[in-house]
Amino acid sequence: MTRVLTVGAAQLGPVARDETRESVVERLLALLHAGAAKGCVLVVFPELALTTFFPRWPADDVDGWFETEMPGPATKPLFDEAQSLGVGFSLGYAELTADGHHYNTQILVERDGRVVARYRKVHIPGHDQFEPERPFQHLERRYFEPGPDGFGVWRAFGAVVGMMICNDRRWPETYRVMGLQGAELILCGYNTPIHYAPDPSQDILQGFHNALVMQAGAYQNGTWVVAAAKGGVEEGVDSLAQSCIIAPSGQIVAQAYTTGDELIVADCDLAWCERYKGTLFDFERYRMIEHYGLITSQRGAVPPPEEQP
Amino acid sequence: MTRVLTVGAAQLGPVARDETRESVVERLLALLHAGAAKGCVLVVFPELALTTFFPRWPADDVDGWFETEMPGPATKPLFDEAQSLGVGFSLGYAELTADGHHYNTQILVERDGRVVARYRKVHIPGHDQFEPERPFQHLERRYFEPGPDGFGVWRAFGAVVGMMICNDRRWPETYRVMGLQGAELILCGYNTPIHYAPDPSQDILQGFHNALVMQAGAYQNGTWVVAAAKGGVEEGVDSLAQSCIIAPSGQIVAQAYTTGDELIVADCDLAWCERYKGTLFDFERYRMIEHYGLITSQRGAVPPPEEQP
Repeated sequence: MTRVLTVGAAQLGPVARDETRESVVERLLALLHAGAAKGCVLVVFPELALTTFFPRWPADDVDGWFETEMPGPATKPLFDEAQSLGVGFSLGYAELTADGHHYNTQILVERDGRVVARYRKVHIPGHDQFEPERPFQHLERRYFEPGPDGFGVWRAFGAVVGMMICNDRRWPETYRVMGLQGAELILCGYNTPIHYAPDPSQDILQGFHNALVMQAGAYQNGTWVVAAAKGGVEEGVDSLAQSCIIAPSGQIVAQAYTTGDELIVADCDLAWCERYKGTLFDFERYRMIEHYGLITSQRGAVPPPEEQP
Repeated sequence: MTRVLTVGAAQLGPVARDETRESVVERLLALLHAGAAKGCVLVVFPELALTTFFPRWPADDVDGWFETEMPGPATKPLFDEAQSLGVGFSLGYAELTADGHHYNTQILVERDGRVVARYRKVHIPGHDQFEPERPFQHLERRYFEPGPDGFGVWRAFGAVVGMMICNDRRWPETYRVMGLQGAELILCGYNTPIHYAPDPSQDILQGFHNALVMQAGAYQNGTWVVAAAKGGVEEGVDSLAQSCIIAPSGQIVAQAYTTGDELIVADCDLAWCERYKGTLFDFERYRMIEHYGLITSQRGAVPPPEEQP
């Protein structure tokens, strides 16, 4: 039996520093409409979709980039239109909670406009102090706290759905924790500057690494991955686009070819997951947790002692 | 500072059922010599290199395929020649211990001919009962016990070296446990039939999956991976060749293009590992073990309860 969900990844081109939320939401609405026209039941938007990627700048007060309610006045039209079209969505944004916490957050909104799941980014990359030698900053560790809730999954859209955000996708633990909860569809938003100041030899590999980690995570857990980028040159910084949809086989079945606003769509057969979850990656049969202890007991790497001369 | 080790992966073509150990060792010696001529300090041979891949047949007694000593009379010339050439090697074989345990084993032999490390395969794939519907069997779970020692690393060849065997490479936990011990060089032997009876849709993807998991494991742990296959049509079963050497960037820097006996070589700069271990994958700085608990506490997948209608 096939269980097909038609899903879209809605890539965004650059969002300028002075672009308003209302203007961005107009762009999201256009992509949501494009998704509806293609038969999507779910459209995935990028990380921090409502604003420019503000961690590239040092600032004493960044709260203006954060949302204190969702939906709020600027985003309400998106929820209304989703309900009207019967198309759900997933949206990344900076969240400021009533008690003052700052998270890099992604929500899942069902076809009736209800928020049915919320994920707060666990793996916060970058740095927390201004580093003058960088051509631009990556101050996520100054502006965001790690999500306290870890990697959950939810039943929505007739699937077991998980979420991850940007840097989370580079860590195999991210997929595995969701895979152990039966994830069939993992939704990911990302902003990835092509220049990586700590090791510029990685710049030319950004597209390769982006695909590699998500293809491996999909295959090794028998899950679909739907990944939406913010791409293009935003405030002088070139960011990877290459939004993609990846099958449980690890194959890329759809990929964006522009660096601007672009919708890609795939018919995701959730039954295909079982070809992997039920065979080679039958976890109950084949995992050897008695030998995995270091993964949870030890945070950093501890090499063996140097040989004595 | 560069720390370059010149390493070879010595692929083997088919080994017939009636081929003697002595004959196989002649082939290994030729590959070892080829490695010496290319400046290798270490040559990696495949899994179960000394015999045909016998788990494809049911049998009441398989002990004849196993080694009870290493070196034994047939393999001693390999150790002697390694010492004479000053070229170390890693060799996979079926190990029968004095107290009757059967392991799928790989050893590491230093340039002076000493066995300095031994790894016993942890993730045993396949099945343990004869399955008549298969065109050939994959009875590893009948013939081998899982290795009881897990994934160690050893200081040898001036590097932190780990080993894994075949199916181990599909599991991200394999690389991560070694990565957490500072692995810089992971040596892997494999036998991978191209036909996968439980889901033949994977047959055409064998080469892709083989590269995908090792490239991801190398990148996500900032380590070199050196992988040697037994390839070609052996006793009627076509096996993946595509032996390869993978950099800490995840890039394949050498790959076999035949399905027979073939040596591939790469200059592996161990210092390149630090570009990943010291930046994006600085585990101490970025890993979030408080959210990884399921990986070691739960063997199988447990999806959330079905929604109530």
